Amino acid sequence: MSGPAAADSTAADVTAAVARAVAAAPAAARATEADRARWLRAIADGLDAAVDDLVPLAARETGLPVPRLTGEVARTTDQLRRFADAIEEGAHLEVVVDHADPTAAPPRPDLRRMLVPLGPVAVYAASNFPFAFSVAGGDTASALAVGCPVVVKAHPGHAATSRATASVVEAALASAGAPAGVFALVESFEAGVALVEAPGITAAAFTGSVRGGRALADRAAARPVPIPFFGELGSLNPVVVTAAADAARGSALAASLAGSFTLGAGQFCTKPGLVLVPADGVLERELPAHVPGGSARMLTDGIGDAFLAGAARVAAVPGVHAVIPTTEAGAPAVSAVDADAFLASAAELTEEVFGPTTLLVRYRSAEELAAAVAALPGSLTATLHAEPGEEVTALVDALAARAGRVLFAGWPTGVAVTWAQHHGGPWPATTSQHTSVGVTAMRRFQRPIAYQDAPEALLPPVLRDGWAGPRRVDGVLRA
Amino acid sequence: MSGPAAADSTAADVTAAVARAVAAAPAAARATEADRARWLRAIADGLDAAVDDLVPLAARETGLPVPRLTGEVARTTDQLRRFADAIEEGAHLEVVVDHADPTAAPPRPDLRRMLVPLGPVAVYAASNFPFAFSVAGGDTASALAVGCPVVVKAHPGHAATSRATASVVEAALASAGAPAGVFALVESFEAGVALVEAPGITAAAFTGSVRGGRALADRAAARPVPIPFFGELGSLNPVVVTAAADAARGSALAASLAGSFTLGAGQFCTKPGLVLVPADGVLERELPAHVPGGSARMLTDGIGDAFLAGAARVAAVPGVHAVIPTTEAGAPAVSAVDADAFLASAAELTEEVFGPTTLLVRYRSAEELAAAVAALPGSLTATLHAEPGEEVTALVDALAARAGRVLFAGWPTGVAVTWAQHHGGPWPATTSQHTSVGVTAMRRFQRPIAYQDAPEALLPPVLRDGWAGPRRVDGVLRA
Repeated sequence: MSGPAAADSTAADVTAAVARAVAAAPAAARATEADRARWLRAIADGLDAAVDDLVPLAARETGLPVPRLTGEVARTTDQLRRFADAIEEGAHLEVVVDHADPTAAPPRPDLRRMLVPLGPVAVYAASNFPFAFSVAGGDTASALAVGCPVVVKAHPGHAATSRATASVVEAALASAGAPAGVFALVESFEAGVALVEAPGITAAAFTGSVRGGRALADRAAARPVPIPFFGELGSLNPVVVTAAADAARGSALAASLAGSFTLGAGQFCTKPGLVLVPADGVLERELPAHVPGGSARMLTDGIGDAFLAGAARVAAVPGVHAVIPTTEAGAPAVSAVDADAFLASAAELTEEVFGPTTLLVRYRSAEELAAAVAALPGSLTATLHAEPGEEVTALVDALAARAGRVLFAGWPTGVAVTWAQHHGGPWPATTSQHTSVGVTAMRRFQRPIAYQDAPEALLPPVLRDGWAGPRRVDGVLRA
Repeated sequence: MSGPAAADSTAADVTAAVARAVAAAPAAARATEADRARWLRAIADGLDAAVDDLVPLAARETGLPVPRLTGEVARTTDQLRRFADAIEEGAHLEVVVDHADPTAAPPRPDLRRMLVPLGPVAVYAASNFPFAFSVAGGDTASALAVGCPVVVKAHPGHAATSRATASVVEAALASAGAPAGVFALVESFEAGVALVEAPGITAAAFTGSVRGGRALADRAAARPVPIPFFGELGSLNPVVVTAAADAARGSALAASLAGSFTLGAGQFCTKPGLVLVPADGVLERELPAHVPGGSARMLTDGIGDAFLAGAARVAAVPGVHAVIPTTEAGAPAVSAVDADAFLASAAELTEEVFGPTTLLVRYRSAEELAAAVAALPGSLTATLHAEPGEEVTALVDALAARAGRVLFAGWPTGVAVTWAQHHGGPWPATTSQHTSVGVTAMRRFQRPIAYQDAPEALLPPVLRDGWAGPRRVDGVLRA
């Protein structure tokens, strides 16, 4: 591994970084949307310019292939620029103006509402996207976009990449005139714990395991002053293949499923971890032939060990048989189980196994399928492969009740960064009702404030009558 | 006290009510906005028709005067009808449509996002507004508006009013065709604890004390499946009077402050509990003459006892002197303290004392004023009385950092229910970034869902291309 030597941030380092973030918060909040858009674009430009340094570093640290990482940098910079465009439009401020109504009973005052930044945000980087969900990823972009300073806790799986990215971010922010202290990087497990408990931190965003996320969420909730914790934890991402779809295109589905669950060595939050298939159907029969052999390097040794432990846990459940046995960390594996045995052990079999494995649950009737769907936990995604004309309304409703994104005739592993995206879902997929991908992810780090009967000169400019952005005035929405 | 005999709901009663709510949830979610608007209007009509029964009952139980309670019923029914209007418009669904873009790299799928109901919501009624923040109050209206069944935990201070209101709500919902089980009332402390821990409950809303709210929030966070807890807890509602304002209109301010802090025997979440005044100024000198004598009945004996204990706690702080001594529960009292003594004991002196008392903090310089403001905790409101032309930008910013609503030249006790209202603020005012009053209060009980590449027939109607409501399409906001 190249880059600077591994550094452990001490509690004092965390205290200092948070103090600088607290000091920067008023200036970050006062900055205009145009100012902050400039910060975001400067970071994007800096990352694009450094791509030839960053990608090889990340490839060495994570084992992820260079083309994937190059694409991930592009996605990360696109995300930063998209957020810049969004804040320049101004809808994220949710401006509402209600002029005074002296004729109402009781008379109504002049009230003007907008969203303002919460304050310093702690961002916990993920292991599996060293750019898009790490130092300069969606959480950092969201927080900076709305005027919150950010203290990132680096993931140890790509420490040098994190430091190199942080250098780019710091230089870009300085060149764009952002206040000093608006961004910092800390490292080490202890720093992560100290960060969520630091009094100056006003919210935290996390992408990682259920266990780690829950531990931090519990600390966030137990603080003397509790703070919101936006965690994206584990996700099973169930897929349903109807008998008709299996008959019509089971072979193609087998090929595309094999590609989806092994993508990035299965190290995607949205990896399809459980597939409900008609017993003895085409997909089941043809899947093994499509699963790539060999083994990919996993992100870290710890993740490899956890993969093997998870696979062993599944294999030990009564009724589970190995279609493609687990051999080593990073080698694709497939298990299968009949629906009745699945239902008898649903708690064990619906826990995410991070890595290149999926579980086929074999159903023999619509009733078995419905019962199995009802046993599924919350997920980021749920996918349905059905044929045109099939009556699947109840099935779609059941999947929608358990997921944040419902897909049709596709695979969940791609996550487009658009206005309509939602990357979240019922527990344990996320801890909150917000997304961590897409433009609305910014809403996590804002709070409303209303001004009552304020003299115009004391109102924030966006709340004055002349502001041109989208808003609701006296009850009427204006784009 | 009239009405049915006091009833204690058992844990089994809670389980049964939640089971009915869970069973009703799919139908409540499937109901159209027009359906739900009809439910809300039926409840409003039912309450208006029952006003002559409900108000005397509430007056006997709470001691609040009949005109105030009559106005509160009107506010409550206005709130229900306003929410009905809002959901018919449809902006609360936050619909976003991004059509597929096969030319993007990677190609982008068709993505359509909206907000859907969370599921059954627990509502903890407040003591001080037996209609507007109780059984059929803002939390219940918000949850039903977006399609969440509601289980209300009644406040024991107005048990008979709660039951009578619940009867009206149940009859109205039945007549309007709402699904059975969409509303229930439970009573008792134990029922309240069981409710927040019931697995079928997906969110909780609470209005009450810091102590009670924190205890329930901690339970909500510690559940195997944590749920969002929207608590409106304590609020100091600081007021700043500049030396210029005191000189120009200190006499009028004294009179209006006396009216505000004694309104409803000081039992408002927005009572001004601390007033920063220039030492030896007009307001301080004239306030005592404006404070009404005698004593008002407080809502419950427990609240009266807590008032006396809180007043005694304040009185015991070094440097605090009684301007109008505390005599009995419900009798207005005023204390005063110099800014330096305030700063020495800010933690004790910034804790809310619920009831008709306020604390004057006497400052002698702009520096003392700024230091005192910096020591203030989060509040629902902060108020500034200044004169035109005074340089108060930094002061306004400091108040805005500590409050959800910043008022000018008024008093915080009135809370208009409009689109721009925000009733919330940094901890301990509320536990979340959402309001509990005003139309956007609905957002607390919704979560996003995105549909990817869904056949049109399987999309919720509001996500189809032809929907006429406000939405963002391919990045462009359309009112």
